[in-house]
Amino acid sequence: MKREVTIIGAGLVGSLLGIYLAKRGYPVTIYERRGDMRKEKISAGRSINLALSDRGIRALEEVGIMNDIRPITIPMHGRQMHHEDGSSAYQPYGLAGQFINSVSRGELNIKLMDLAASYGVDIFFNQTCDFIDWDKKTIHFKHGESTIIKKFDLLFGSDGAYSATRLNHQLQHDRFQYHQYYIDYGYKELHIPPGADGKFMMKENALHIWPRGNYMLIALPNTDGSFTCTLFFPFDGEPSFASLTTKQKIQDFFTEHFPDACNLMPTLTADFVHNPTSSLVTVKCFPWVRKNHFTLIGDAAHALVPFFGQGMNCGFEDCSVLDKLIDEEKEDWEKILDRFQELRKPDADAIADLALNNFIEMRDKVADPVFLLQKKIENRFSSKYPEIWTPAYGLVTFRPDLRYSTALEKGNRQQAIMEEIMRMPGIQDIWDSQQVEDAMLQKINTNHV
Amino acid sequence: MKREVTIIGAGLVGSLLGIYLAKRGYPVTIYERRGDMRKEKISAGRSINLALSDRGIRALEEVGIMNDIRPITIPMHGRQMHHEDGSSAYQPYGLAGQFINSVSRGELNIKLMDLAASYGVDIFFNQTCDFIDWDKKTIHFKHGESTIIKKFDLLFGSDGAYSATRLNHQLQHDRFQYHQYYIDYGYKELHIPPGADGKFMMKENALHIWPRGNYMLIALPNTDGSFTCTLFFPFDGEPSFASLTTKQKIQDFFTEHFPDACNLMPTLTADFVHNPTSSLVTVKCFPWVRKNHFTLIGDAAHALVPFFGQGMNCGFEDCSVLDKLIDEEKEDWEKILDRFQELRKPDADAIADLALNNFIEMRDKVADPVFLLQKKIENRFSSKYPEIWTPAYGLVTFRPDLRYSTALEKGNRQQAIMEEIMRMPGIQDIWDSQQVEDAMLQKINTNHV
Repeated sequence: MKREVTIIGAGLVGSLLGIYLAKRGYPVTIYERRGDMRKEKISAGRSINLALSDRGIRALEEVGIMNDIRPITIPMHGRQMHHEDGSSAYQPYGLAGQFINSVSRGELNIKLMDLAASYGVDIFFNQTCDFIDWDKKTIHFKHGESTIIKKFDLLFGSDGAYSATRLNHQLQHDRFQYHQYYIDYGYKELHIPPGADGKFMMKENALHIWPRGNYMLIALPNTDGSFTCTLFFPFDGEPSFASLTTKQKIQDFFTEHFPDACNLMPTLTADFVHNPTSSLVTVKCFPWVRKNHFTLIGDAAHALVPFFGQGMNCGFEDCSVLDKLIDEEKEDWEKILDRFQELRKPDADAIADLALNNFIEMRDKVADPVFLLQKKIENRFSSKYPEIWTPAYGLVTFRPDLRYSTALEKGNRQQAIMEEIMRMPGIQDIWDSQQVEDAMLQKINTNHV
Repeated sequence: MKREVTIIGAGLVGSLLGIYLAKRGYPVTIYERRGDMRKEKISAGRSINLALSDRGIRALEEVGIMNDIRPITIPMHGRQMHHEDGSSAYQPYGLAGQFINSVSRGELNIKLMDLAASYGVDIFFNQTCDFIDWDKKTIHFKHGESTIIKKFDLLFGSDGAYSATRLNHQLQHDRFQYHQYYIDYGYKELHIPPGADGKFMMKENALHIWPRGNYMLIALPNTDGSFTCTLFFPFDGEPSFASLTTKQKIQDFFTEHFPDACNLMPTLTADFVHNPTSSLVTVKCFPWVRKNHFTLIGDAAHALVPFFGQGMNCGFEDCSVLDKLIDEEKEDWEKILDRFQELRKPDADAIADLALNNFIEMRDKVADPVFLLQKKIENRFSSKYPEIWTPAYGLVTFRPDLRYSTALEKGNRQQAIMEEIMRMPGIQDIWDSQQVEDAMLQKINTNHV
């Protein structure tokens, strides 16, 4: 007899987890706080695009649904960098054939819910988890003034960065390690519509970036020819969400700093005013697990800032790791859950740190000539010796065989080498010389990178 | 008209804050979750002793109550270090005349509540803060099944490390920075009773320490001739609270590792079994304040581990800083509270880090010969040049004129110098030479320590 599975949260990770477990024969019920997005319109300004990459794809392939998902993705083979003067330059990702995939959160979620339902998963909507009684193993769902109480046997909390299951877990747990850190930046969704006949108005197969040091705009393609744009912007200061107080100021700001994007955004000022400004949080906690009957998973266990494009991919990898442990531990759920958190906690911490560091790097260093020179040296070296040097982005994005924690360690060792290289006398003049190349090769040998 | 002040928590900081504000003419009401410890017996094993030092004393003096407190304190002029063979050695604190003071948490709290009451502060007991409505400015107190709702105007949350006001603040606050970290050690209170005629069975005016690397026992004198002992001990592993499972194991363990203390503890095994094992947490959060009507203060704002003996002293200093700001900002509470958190947050972070580092140092380095040699060099130098070098402990404990954050910076600069000194060739042989002394003087000059 398989244990009865209850999942809180029918987001990307909850739905995929439901598919994994249902395919193994577990009876699965999912409770979702929101309404059914398959019937209701997704609220404007929340249809954020995500970058599905190799770790996420591997999980989808394992569970046999990647072919269902592929049609709603658009491969992005590189970055299109847009400069302030309106010009732009294309940089392919890593090696030939490596790409990441633009996918709409809403479309993907609907697809995953449909697939879950097709495997027999029951999903109930508008179910707000209010309280969990860990002794009685019951969940209290609030419906206006009344409460509906459901028993659970094996419970998963996949209810996202602001997880209600985590809060109930935390408040009734002795010595719970908990850390939440908001960066002082928010994000806002903006929109570039398709041109005539649904034509893309910019390069289709690219992730578009307008880096501006203290802030950044990105755009990812949608299947309908539009682009979903996201502005990452300080909450306060000059310029910031707080300082762009009128439509005129918004228009002027975009005209000055994002001239090419601005021309493609007919609804810019209305979108800016009406779309919500969302926060960006890192959450770390421990333990994730209660004995043999509960674990947090996905963002609920480890919310990341989006600057490495790994939040969803990490959550999908969680499902894949859990799935392997079910086999290895022969469905002994106390062992499965214990090993799950032991294995995944260091990896979740690593990608959380990598993502936050990437934010700091983008914010502070994008105009730093030493940093830019270092990137040039690294890229030159890595394209010449792809087998021995992959920049951190590539380790995280295109090497699903490496644990995040291993990618972080490897990245740190590479960074230490680069710091030595950058201290070579006259490095700005000799950066593309054989001497620098030899020095790197020698340091790699000595440091066993 | 003075604003009406409501304080949640009649602990050490809440009571002292009540005194500060009542003396300024504010009408003050305190709500306390527990019963009145002046009428009820303090629960056994919770009568922890504290070390009142210069920062705390300064606050008590400022508000004019140090003379009321002094009779319940016992000066401790140094550390008595007890070795595993039963021998011991005395180390005076810093300079001549510098001392810290043993005081019972319970006795001090009762004294502060009595003083608060004498200044007209109303204290209500058995009041569990359940919910705060920040819009309506009401506090909901739970009494069994019923709820009593009280209005507030100017609210202080001084309800300790597990603060209910903080939780209500946090859960209803956008982008709240929050960090709680439990070390994997707990503590348990033990007891050395007085001898015949109330005589102290060990040196009276000292803080007694039995350092054992992975764990530690301390004892502080009480006015009745007894000592309150605290064992800091791992929760798990070998040895740990989890491993000492029988009275025989407890007795054997103490006989082996604390032979002298053990002989003075007739109720050791009973105390060990019956007294609770408590956790040790660091809490950092931000913001502490809501506009002009709320702030966290004391442990509720910044819980520390006890390894620098600064938790209470830091909370008392909070009251003193707030008091000065009331004058400086002429009772404009929006400005007072805003400056309070801006000023105190870096200092609270600094002492939290210092306390945690001290724990790590005690745990990992007490048997490290390099570390011990470094301490010897530092102590030698500091006793020769007390005006130019004070070890970090002295900066924190005996220099209330320095902010905690300044003490941390100064301590870090000194640590950097010591790391260079420890790299001098043959340092173990020349540690007390003129050469090392000169090197330190030169580095101090260069680094402007």
